[in-house]
Amino acid sequence: MTTVAVVYHSGFGHTQALAEAVAKGAQAVPGTKVSLIPVAEAEAREAELDAADAIIFGSPTYMGGVSAEFAKFKDWTSKRWMEGTWRNKLASGFTVSASWNGDKHNTIYQLLTLAVQHGMVWVGLGLPPGNNHSKGSSEDINRLGASVGAMAQAHADLGVEGIAASDFKTFEALGRRVAEAAGRWKEVPLAQAA
Amino acid sequence: MTTVAVVYHSGFGHTQALAEAVAKGAQAVPGTKVSLIPVAEAEAREAELDAADAIIFGSPTYMGGVSAEFAKFKDWTSKRWMEGTWRNKLASGFTVSASWNGDKHNTIYQLLTLAVQHGMVWVGLGLPPGNNHSKGSSEDINRLGASVGAMAQAHADLGVEGIAASDFKTFEALGRRVAEAAGRWKEVPLAQAA
Amino acid sequence: MTTVAVVYHSGFGHTQALAEAVAKGAQAVPGTKVSLIPVAEAEAREAELDAADAIIFGSPTYMGGVSAEFAKFKDWTSKRWMEGTWRNKLASGFTVSASWNGDKHNTIYQLLTLAVQHGMVWVGLGLPPGNNHSKGSSEDINRLGASVGAMAQAHADLGVEGIAASDFKTFEALGRRVAEAAGRWKEVPLAQAA
Amino acid sequence: MTTVAVVYHSGFGHTQALAEAVAKGAQAVPGTKVSLIPVAEAEAREAELDAADAIIFGSPTYMGGVSAEFAKFKDWTSKRWMEGTWRNKLASGFTVSASWNGDKHNTIYQLLTLAVQHGMVWVGLGLPPGNNHSKGSSEDINRLGASVGAMAQAHADLGVEGIAASDFKTFEALGRRVAEAAGRWKEVPLAQAA
Repeated sequence: MTTVAVVYHSGFGHTQALAEAVAKGAQAVPGTKVSLIPVAEAEAREAELDAADAIIFGSPTYMGGVSAEFAKFKDWTSKRWMEGTWRNKLASGFTVSASWNGDKHNTIYQLLTLAVQHGMVWVGLGLPPGNNHSKGSSEDINRLGASVGAMAQAHADLGVEGIAASDFKTFEALGRRVAEAAGRWKEVPLAQAA
Repeated sequence: MTTVAVVYHSGFGHTQALAEAVAKGAQAVPGTKVSLIPVAEAEAREAELDAADAIIFGSPTYMGGVSAEFAKFKDWTSKRWMEGTWRNKLASGFTVSASWNGDKHNTIYQLLTLAVQHGMVWVGLGLPPGNNHSKGSSEDINRLGASVGAMAQAHADLGVEGIAASDFKTFEALGRRVAEAAGRWKEVPLAQAA
Repeated sequence: MTTVAVVYHSGFGHTQALAEAVAKGAQAVPGTKVSLIPVAEAEAREAELDAADAIIFGSPTYMGGVSAEFAKFKDWTSKRWMEGTWRNKLASGFTVSASWNGDKHNTIYQLLTLAVQHGMVWVGLGLPPGNNHSKGSSEDINRLGASVGAMAQAHADLGVEGIAASDFKTFEALGRRVAEAAGRWKEVPLAQAA
Repeated sequence: MTTVAVVYHSGFGHTQALAEAVAKGAQAVPGTKVSLIPVAEAEAREAELDAADAIIFGSPTYMGGVSAEFAKFKDWTSKRWMEGTWRNKLASGFTVSASWNGDKHNTIYQLLTLAVQHGMVWVGLGLPPGNNHSKGSSEDINRLGASVGAMAQAHADLGVEGIAASDFKTFEALGRRVAEAAGRWKEVPLAQAA
């Protein structure tokens, strides 16, 4: 059994809905068990995080970066960092904001940097950009053209109904990709580098 | 007279057209003289660069970063870096790629890093994000929601005609903003920090 | 009178001591009034922030990014972002961590992104790198070779006494540079871009 | 047999020496074949790149980013990007500059972004920071405290003899880590995400 944890903060429900899409994608890979963990429950459910083969981090982009609630979780992981608990797990990440760009890269770089500080291996989105030629449309998977992690956009005045179907598909694909990679990766233990 | 130099590389004409929009915006500010300099002419026109109150850097985003031609220009500036020639000038930057995100931030961060290594002061785009609520549209200025510099998107199979009118407006606004800032900034010389 | 606000979070005292060095540098510029504001007091002292000609942001680097406490402040600024309150002020930033690199750039990029989202103009460190040739030493100003903002390093097991004298000098230089730039910048109001 | 390609540009020999250290580390993992490829030979040796299980990218940091020569190689890979040739290979990266920080992160982010655009999986350095407490020293492995990739520093006026022994050890560890990961990863093919 491969285990994937999705740990996220959601302020208004968008990131929650997208985290569920990531979980759904991971779940679709045979032999995968998924833990969907809001950051507020991270401490209580730390055993699930520590046992996971892969951890996928999610945060909305607020003022060009991860939310304060996600940052609190990030800082909380420092004990694990010191002990190397998450070393050599797989990792990935996702975010959402109200505009197409909206400095979401800064959030993704924070998620990536957190992961590599923990010694994790980063699985990017792995999808070619959608909607980058004149026959494309906003219905293309990866319509925003992300690469380091998954990105979604939803208008600031809309709730979860404002998230494009293509963004949900993109996030499902991220979950599937990470679950497949975790299944592949866990076959053989990686020796400790030193 | 305030002088603004726009130095750019264009592979297929998109960045050229956008550089012209930046120049047009700067030109619209009374008392501004603009130099539009392709990187291939940078060496021959170095006096214009050295005399400028502000330099705006432009490059397409190729494979998630500045083009090789722009990078060659970047490396060429190292003599100026050693001599502090561009210290305390104003700077800004812009890029274009085929998708909405497309890792354009990485190009902008390169342009910014180049500028601050030279001791320049960075003027960001200064426009709120467009198209980030349900009454917005792709016709909004700053439709991509950029902040560090200006960003445009044009489908990979289209030429200059594929650039949105709103992107041209965004780039004109960048030129205007930098020219205004340069006029303001040049009033008083900044003492050398040490 | 030019006013400079230094707003920062300090977990163990290092960032506090460095914020004081920044304030000292700014104070040394004739005609400058400095507000030193811990993020916990930002709400109570918001009038000082809103009135400042320049705001310098400071955060330790925790797990490769700004601390949760700083992130909370960052998110709190969103009302000002919507209203454009800080538009066209000058900005800069600084950070400290236990190792020479330690992903401090990620913290600085967050501070920069916050600033440019607010429409602020970014004043980088403006010092050439120290200690980059064989006659240099750890006593050189800007010994870490930073450019976007100021960076310091202090061993994890030491308190404020572990901060190098050269780092204090670097941070003073940042404060001085921003105060000088603010004095220069405030002469003429910048028209609103649009 | 696991194959690892190290593709790099070296202007003055430092990156060459460090690339050799990475290759030596990878070679030390039983069952690993290493190709050491200067970017000038990339086209002639493209079959080695395409056959590799992992590709490690290396560039000096010039003016806060990859060198023009490396950028030329980066742009050249666009055909492979369109065809997905390098999809699901492992990747990592390294850089060197004259100062401890020196904006090396910007180079590493370019290498990472290139890799994830190709759909590659990123193996970070995986070493805790050295020299971050008062019993540490410049002789510690990972003395600079890097995480996303490997970083070295050598004074601008010194040749290869100016590279610290600890940096060579760090780069060997990167090569070893990537080779081990590649051996582990290649066991099972990863299904195409979509």
